[in-house]
Amino acid sequence: MLDFSFKVLNKDKNSKARRGRIKTRRGEIETPIFMPVGTVGSVKGLTPDDLNDLGAQIILGNTYHLFLRPGLALLDDFGGLHDFMKWDKPILTDSGGFQVFSLADLRNIKEEGVTFKSHINGSKLFISPEISMKIQASINSEIVMAFDECPPDPRDHKYIENSIERTTRWLNRCKTTIKDGQALFGINQGGIFTDLRLRHLEQIVELDLPGYAIGGLSVGETNEEMYEVLDNITYKFPENKPRYLMGVGKPEDILEGIESGVDMFDCVMPTRNARNGQLFTWNGRVNIKRKDFEFDHDPIDKECNCYTCRNFSKAYLRHLFKAHEILLYRLLSIHNLHFYLDLVEKSREKIEDGSFKEWKAKVIDKIKERVTKD
Amino acid sequence: MLDFSFKVLNKDKNSKARRGRIKTRRGEIETPIFMPVGTVGSVKGLTPDDLNDLGAQIILGNTYHLFLRPGLALLDDFGGLHDFMKWDKPILTDSGGFQVFSLADLRNIKEEGVTFKSHINGSKLFISPEISMKIQASINSEIVMAFDECPPDPRDHKYIENSIERTTRWLNRCKTTIKDGQALFGINQGGIFTDLRLRHLEQIVELDLPGYAIGGLSVGETNEEMYEVLDNITYKFPENKPRYLMGVGKPEDILEGIESGVDMFDCVMPTRNARNGQLFTWNGRVNIKRKDFEFDHDPIDKECNCYTCRNFSKAYLRHLFKAHEILLYRLLSIHNLHFYLDLVEKSREKIEDGSFKEWKAKVIDKIKERVTKD
Repeated sequence: MLDFSFKVLNKDKNSKARRGRIKTRRGEIETPIFMPVGTVGSVKGLTPDDLNDLGAQIILGNTYHLFLRPGLALLDDFGGLHDFMKWDKPILTDSGGFQVFSLADLRNIKEEGVTFKSHINGSKLFISPEISMKIQASINSEIVMAFDECPPDPRDHKYIENSIERTTRWLNRCKTTIKDGQALFGINQGGIFTDLRLRHLEQIVELDLPGYAIGGLSVGETNEEMYEVLDNITYKFPENKPRYLMGVGKPEDILEGIESGVDMFDCVMPTRNARNGQLFTWNGRVNIKRKDFEFDHDPIDKECNCYTCRNFSKAYLRHLFKAHEILLYRLLSIHNLHFYLDLVEKSREKIEDGSFKEWKAKVIDKIKERVTKD
Repeated sequence: MLDFSFKVLNKDKNSKARRGRIKTRRGEIETPIFMPVGTVGSVKGLTPDDLNDLGAQIILGNTYHLFLRPGLALLDDFGGLHDFMKWDKPILTDSGGFQVFSLADLRNIKEEGVTFKSHINGSKLFISPEISMKIQASINSEIVMAFDECPPDPRDHKYIENSIERTTRWLNRCKTTIKDGQALFGINQGGIFTDLRLRHLEQIVELDLPGYAIGGLSVGETNEEMYEVLDNITYKFPENKPRYLMGVGKPEDILEGIESGVDMFDCVMPTRNARNGQLFTWNGRVNIKRKDFEFDHDPIDKECNCYTCRNFSKAYLRHLFKAHEILLYRLLSIHNLHFYLDLVEKSREKIEDGSFKEWKAKVIDKIKERVTKD
């Protein structure tokens, strides 16, 4: 029995943005939502308590990474990732496809599946739609992504035209093997081509899945190309199903996605950039390394009420960065994830009162202003 | 005005162990106490909230490291380390002597002070008793350690005999320049030689300082040599002043020190060993890497009520170690510091009820048993 539903609660007056609610067996998710990425069984540097304090409602686990470590035997032994890492709210898992196509060496793609070498120890591995479903069954995530092909070049029309057909066939195999109780999302591919995207969408919508994702974006195309695709296709996805834009992205990308009607996002940027000292704020991105922060007693953002901004000065954080103190990664990850979760929370509020489009235009300008100054 | 006092509250029936209380301008410290080490302005991986949750009563800052980074200008700008790192309880700072003599390159020791090269960028630096007091004034610690010479070999009688005279002269200069409001502790040197230790002790006790430390141990001598020195000299330290055994040590060393009458301890072991996966428990030391922990659902120590043991399994922690996830360092540091703080808390209880010596004999055996098994 699948305990999963989605409802659109509000629509923005002047855009395609929508405010919704996903119900899962492990609680509700208010959309639009951002999902922190817990690649190998932890959101880097943070405990589940940290994530709860941040108001995270769902996190993402990476099937490829979890398949390599800790591996299926251990996941099965704990009945899934939740009890293993002590996170009791919903988890979404990607299919492993993106990592197989981007991280692993020496891929060999056949109709049956993909043979590749582990990026950790070079051992030969094989993932097929059935195996991806099996791994995600062991992880026991609430939302399971279909195993799709991620074409290397989003502009290669010929390649992509063949690829989407295979992705559809693989999706059918996923649907056949998905574990009862898990919600399977189909992934729309088609590169930057609206015609291919819509053709593929038609094929996967026929399967009447619990949700649909947009894959194959933010992989080398320009911002404008991505926004155009989003604008052309998102509103054609089923109205009554959640829409997930995979692996995207910068704060401005998320706002553009929401405006086009996307409900769910994930990205490693808030945690990865934190480890490089880069911070997201409502006034744009800043790096904690900046010389003019050396004696700055203010927090990263005076308006921010995250744990880091409530407690620590830029001068102290800059010192931790300079001294390579590991505490920094936790503190900056907390700030950045708070910003991303605040971004989608404010978006929900603005959609509710119908002012999302105007608010978004103002916010995006502020972000862009500071980025160019940096 | 110095707001600093020490009182012995209880004595153990069958040993020299004592239970006391230090009062400082930033609160009280129950002794015997262990001080977590915050080398460069953070106890690695932990926030002040983590330390408060652990029941830490005082932490140690390293003068040498803080002199290099963040440096005096920044410390002065924040009025000291407390506000900079947001720790509002007492801080003890070492004098920088130990690091100058162990970490820095190309030392040149003269009566005036020591010239050396920074271990970070090779720049030429100079620390004298006056400069050590000035740095510690900028850190604004509650307890300031005198700048002493740390002889390279604890068994070189001739060298040490000259060295203790210089350390006494340097101590006089420290006393002249100590900032009002900070409590200066003198450091007893003398290697493994009871005669030199006692001769030096007599010299420094004449200055009637707020507290006294035992330096130059745990630097290459055997455990037995160290315990013998402790046993021969500690009880001859002033009864009404706190006694601090610097940089020591293993859990068993701390119990031996307490039995000899020591009140204060610090050591990097709980946090440093955590980063290598080594854990302290009431059943001895274990490494989280152990193959037999792979599927172990139990916490590190079932009796332990630290955050890590209340929440996570050995299997999960082992996975974090294998996957190099930075969350591990925080979780294991929490467990190890909890153990050390628990060790001194239990010691205080046992001294209060007069059963410390018997309890210690039992505990030390348990620890040793598991260590040899590992």
